[in-house]
Amino acid sequence: MTSINHEFETRFKLWLDELDKFINNNITSTEPVFNQAQSRLINAGGKRIRSLLFLISSQADRNREELSNRLIEIAAAIEILHMATLVHDDIADQARLRRGEPSALDEFGSEPALFIGDYFLSKAYHLFFKNLSAESLKFLSSKLPEICAGQMSEFKNRYNYDITVRDYLKQVRRKTGLLFGVASYTGAIEAGFSKASSVHYYRYGLALGMAFQIQDDLLDILGDTETMGKPPLQDIRQGIYTLPVILLLEDNELKVRFIRLIESESYLKILELLENNQYLNQARKIEEQYFKRAAAELDYFVDDPAGDDLEFILNCQNNRRE
Amino acid sequence: MTSINHEFETRFKLWLDELDKFINNNITSTEPVFNQAQSRLINAGGKRIRSLLFLISSQADRNREELSNRLIEIAAAIEILHMATLVHDDIADQARLRRGEPSALDEFGSEPALFIGDYFLSKAYHLFFKNLSAESLKFLSSKLPEICAGQMSEFKNRYNYDITVRDYLKQVRRKTGLLFGVASYTGAIEAGFSKASSVHYYRYGLALGMAFQIQDDLLDILGDTETMGKPPLQDIRQGIYTLPVILLLEDNELKVRFIRLIESESYLKILELLENNQYLNQARKIEEQYFKRAAAELDYFVDDPAGDDLEFILNCQNNRRE
Repeated sequence: MTSINHEFETRFKLWLDELDKFINNNITSTEPVFNQAQSRLINAGGKRIRSLLFLISSQADRNREELSNRLIEIAAAIEILHMATLVHDDIADQARLRRGEPSALDEFGSEPALFIGDYFLSKAYHLFFKNLSAESLKFLSSKLPEICAGQMSEFKNRYNYDITVRDYLKQVRRKTGLLFGVASYTGAIEAGFSKASSVHYYRYGLALGMAFQIQDDLLDILGDTETMGKPPLQDIRQGIYTLPVILLLEDNELKVRFIRLIESESYLKILELLENNQYLNQARKIEEQYFKRAAAELDYFVDDPAGDDLEFILNCQNNRRE
Repeated sequence: MTSINHEFETRFKLWLDELDKFINNNITSTEPVFNQAQSRLINAGGKRIRSLLFLISSQADRNREELSNRLIEIAAAIEILHMATLVHDDIADQARLRRGEPSALDEFGSEPALFIGDYFLSKAYHLFFKNLSAESLKFLSSKLPEICAGQMSEFKNRYNYDITVRDYLKQVRRKTGLLFGVASYTGAIEAGFSKASSVHYYRYGLALGMAFQIQDDLLDILGDTETMGKPPLQDIRQGIYTLPVILLLEDNELKVRFIRLIESESYLKILELLENNQYLNQARKIEEQYFKRAAAELDYFVDDPAGDDLEFILNCQNNRRE
C-alpha cells in the first residue's frame, strides 16, 4: 500500500505543505499548553482528507480563484475542528494512542485535553468566521451540533448489545459522514457553484465519509498496532460495537456467546467468531455500497476540474489498509 | 438583598421571559441527552447578566431596532455559550453542584457532560453565525480562544502557591471579563454604534466582569451553601487560590502556615488566617477598583438610553451578596 500513499502524497504535496505551514505558523495562544498541543497534533500526521476534500472542491470551477490564503485558512480550520473532535473522543474513550503517538489525553491529562479541544473548536470557528462565505457558514454551523450528537450517541451506545445496524449507520453519518460532506459542499460553494450543484459534492463527501468510517471500524478489528497506530480490537475492548459485531448480535444464539466472551475478555475468540460467520465480509459489502454511492455522484462533476482528484481520493480510500 | 433581586427581575422581566422562552422552545437535538441538559440548565436559573448586557447595549441607540427575534437569539447564544463553559469547568473542577442543583457532570456523568458542553458551544456558534453582523462576529470569535486560555490557566494554577496577583487578574480577565466585554460591545455594534463608541461598552463590560469574578471568588470564601448554591471554600478545597489567598501567599511566613493548613485540610483555620490578616478587605478594595472602572465608562454613554440600565446592573452587582 506504500505506493498508493506515496502517489497520494506526491499528488497533493503542494497543498498539504501549505496547509501544514499555515497551521505551524499559526500557533498563537498566550497559553503554552495550547501551543504545544497544536504543534504536537499537527506534526503527528494524518492524511488531512477532510481539508483536501475542501481544497479540491474549492478548485472545482474552471474560472476558479487561485488557491489563496483564504482557502488554506478554511482548510486548516477544518483540520483543527477535526482535531478538536479527536481530542474529546479520546477523553471519552480513555484512548492513550492516536495515530501511533500518545494522545492529548495521555500527554497532557484529562482536564487540559478538555480545554485543548475547546480551544481548537474556538480557533476553528474563528478561522471560519474570518474566511467563509455566508452560505457556507450557515451550512457548516447547522451541521456541527449534529456531529456532537454523533459523538454522544457512540458513547451512549457503549456496551449496548441491542444496537441496530440503523442506529450504527445514523451514528457513523453524524460522527464522520457530515464533516466529509460539509468539507466538500463548502468547497464547491466557495468555488462559486450553486447550491443545487454543490449538493452533489455534499452527497459525495457524505457517502465517502461513511465508507471511510465503516472501513476504519473494520481495520480496528483486522489491523495490527504497527499500521493502525493503536492496538487491534480497541473498539470491542471499550464496548464500542461496530458493524460486523452488530450484524453478529442480530443472531440471538451468537449474541449469548458474544456476551459471554466479552465477560471473560476472550478477544481472540471474538475475532474467530466474527471470521467464521462471514460478518466481516457482510460489513465489507455495506462499506462497498457507500463507496459506490460516492462514485455515483462523481458523474455529476465529470466535467469539473476537481472530478479526477475526487475520483483519485475515492480510490485511495477504497484500497487503504491502514 | 432579596429586594435588589426583586427589583432586578421586575425591571428586566419582559426580556428575561423572552430569552427563556426562546431557549426552551429551541430544544431541537436528535440526541435526547442534549435536550434534557438544555432544559435542566436553563431552568436552574442564573441572572443571565451576560445576555442582559447584550440586550441593554443593543438598545443603546435612540433610533434603535425594536427588540427583535434576531437580538433575542443572539442573547440566547451568549447564555448557551456561557453554559458550555460552566459545564466544562465543572468537569475540570469535579464540581457536583451548580446554582444549587446537581451539575451536568453530576447528573449525566463526565463523558456525556463533555459532549453536552461541545453541543452547547456549537449551538451557540450556529445562532451567532445566523444573527450577528460581520463586525460583531469577528470581534466575538477573536476573543473565544482567549476564554479557553483563561479556563486552562485556572486549572493549571491549581495548588500553585507561587501564583501572583498579576497572574490571577489576567486569568479573571480572560475567564470572565472577556465575555462580559464581548456581550456589551457586540450589543453596541448591533445598535449601530461605531467601533470607537462601542469600545466604551467593551471596557465597561470587561471591568464589570472582573469585579463580578473577584466578588464571586470572595463569596466562595464568605458565603454559605444556601445562598451560593455550593459549599463554602470550594475553591480552596480544590486548590484554586483566588485573590485573598494570593495576597496572603505574598507573606512568606503565612505562606508556610497556609500550606501546612492545606495539608491537614484545616479549612476553618484558613478562614481565620484570612480574616485576621485583612486580606479579605484588601481583595474587596481591588474589586471596588474594577467597579469604579466600569462606572467611569458610564460617563461615555450618559446620553444613551442604555445608560440607566447599565448603571442599575452595576449597582446590583456591587451590592450582591450571593
